[in-house]
Amino acid sequence: MKSESVFQRDRYPTGLMLGLGMYAMMSVACAEHPPQPPFSALPQSRLVDLTHPFGSETIVWPTEQDIKVIVQHAEDMPGGYYYASNRLELPEHGGTHMDAPIHFARGTQTLDQIPIDRLVGGAVRIDVADQCANDRDYRVEIRDLERWESRHGRIPVHAIVLLDTGFGRLWPARQQYLGTELRGAEGVDALHFPGLHPDAAVWLVRERQVKAVGIDTASIDYGRSTKFETHVALLSHNVPVFENLADLSGLPNHGFDVIALPMKIAGGTGGPLRIIAIVPEPR
Amino acid sequence: MKSESVFQRDRYPTGLMLGLGMYAMMSVACAEHPPQPPFSALPQSRLVDLTHPFGSETIVWPTEQDIKVIVQHAEDMPGGYYYASNRLELPEHGGTHMDAPIHFARGTQTLDQIPIDRLVGGAVRIDVADQCANDRDYRVEIRDLERWESRHGRIPVHAIVLLDTGFGRLWPARQQYLGTELRGAEGVDALHFPGLHPDAAVWLVRERQVKAVGIDTASIDYGRSTKFETHVALLSHNVPVFENLADLSGLPNHGFDVIALPMKIAGGTGGPLRIIAIVPEPR
Ligand SMILES: [Zn+2]
Ligand SMILES: [Zn+2]
Repeated sequence: MKSESVFQRDRYPTGLMLGLGMYAMMSVACAEHPPQPPFSALPQSRLVDLTHPFGSETIVWPTEQDIKVIVQHAEDMPGGYYYASNRLELPEHGGTHMDAPIHFARGTQTLDQIPIDRLVGGAVRIDVADQCANDRDYRVEIRDLERWESRHGRIPVHAIVLLDTGFGRLWPARQQYLGTELRGAEGVDALHFPGLHPDAAVWLVRERQVKAVGIDTASIDYGRSTKFETHVALLSHNVPVFENLADLSGLPNHGFDVIALPMKIAGGTGGPLRIIAIVPEPR
Repeated sequence: MKSESVFQRDRYPTGLMLGLGMYAMMSVACAEHPPQPPFSALPQSRLVDLTHPFGSETIVWPTEQDIKVIVQHAEDMPGGYYYASNRLELPEHGGTHMDAPIHFARGTQTLDQIPIDRLVGGAVRIDVADQCANDRDYRVEIRDLERWESRHGRIPVHAIVLLDTGFGRLWPARQQYLGTELRGAEGVDALHFPGLHPDAAVWLVRERQVKAVGIDTASIDYGRSTKFETHVALLSHNVPVFENLADLSGLPNHGFDVIALPMKIAGGTGGPLRIIAIVPEPR
């Protein structure tokens, strides 16, 4: 479910070339060519994909239709070349996706309007897997966040906060992940999975000015929610939400960056998200 | 069409905190809390969105149906909250999208199988807007790449190469962008837009080991192509292609990173792409 890759120093020779002042050092002229241009300013890193694949197996909300990938071509063409293409049908809010503020807050930002600097930057992982293993209706509380801070330091302002409930590892087993395989309204009534308590959401917005919040369950509100108060608390303050994240357990508690790039749907209330972590790796 | 944002130093206090050795310097303890964890290892940057929005206006290939964003909800719900959501119907290869190797090369990687380190890293912009303004059937040649190198230095191995034809600025005017508003086979016959010459594609693969190639037109093969030899040259060597990129003219010629994250479609031959550039900004 998770693909990782390591930037290799020989392949990415300027991986640690991070200060702008160092660019000059790397620009070694040779006889034939002027100096090689500066290459990458990204840190020497391990890239971690936090995205589940999209397909007919993708878990969607009980009231939604499954994702369809419809084959158009997969064949040799008269012109003498092989050609393959598909069409897609999907809900905005299935699989690993982003909620835009407009999803629960009238008149706010649509998916294409979210500034990309909200979706890129330093992140923390809050590990609540033990609590959620004991109680699949668990809601992450302020005291969980305070406990994290007592161990790892204050959550920096403008951080991206990822909640690791451990449920990302249950994907794509629908019964285990959602608590039910039922569909429709009956399925909604039978949802049991962890989420973020509305009080903790307000705390993250007011006290820590977070950029965005992600979780490895089907919703940032726990499965028992009927009023979606955590969605409202975050989205009404233009804090986007990432849902159905893949297994987060390969991430450190802090000291990494997240890049979360949704499909740029004009007027979108949310949509498919590709999200990766950049974890610096000293060598 | 292009949204830009600048990391502000006061908001992203560790923006230039780039060497791992510098982490320690930033970890200032206070009375109440242990040291704040390292925050972002990304450079002090300007983020540039290279993605056109997806919607009913999105330019698709003449043989494809337009993208549909179908409203499900945009209303106050009985539970006492506002709720908005949509469904999507789209071809994999419309708007700003990625071509996976399988699109033109049987048995190769599908979209979800492309290693993410192919899609992240140092990039160059090859400006061929003048040539394409004079000839909308222009194909970028090896000599254009050599001319770039004579000015800016050798294209580093494993670079992401973006071809700036200037056509990204014509979007979404279908007639100007594609050369025709006709649909179906008739539309395909009337396509006129620039692309990459197959010989130059082979050169980029063999001589410069590029990671990926992008262009701000509807196809990496020019509009007159019938055999799609440039697609085959790149994709058969597992070099993914980015098409319908937005205006590239805001990028430098080199010294920036690209992050190109496609929707992770299981078995996808391509799909919607969100692509950004990270342009270091000294302060
Ligand atoms: Zn959602
Ligand atoms: Zn394509």
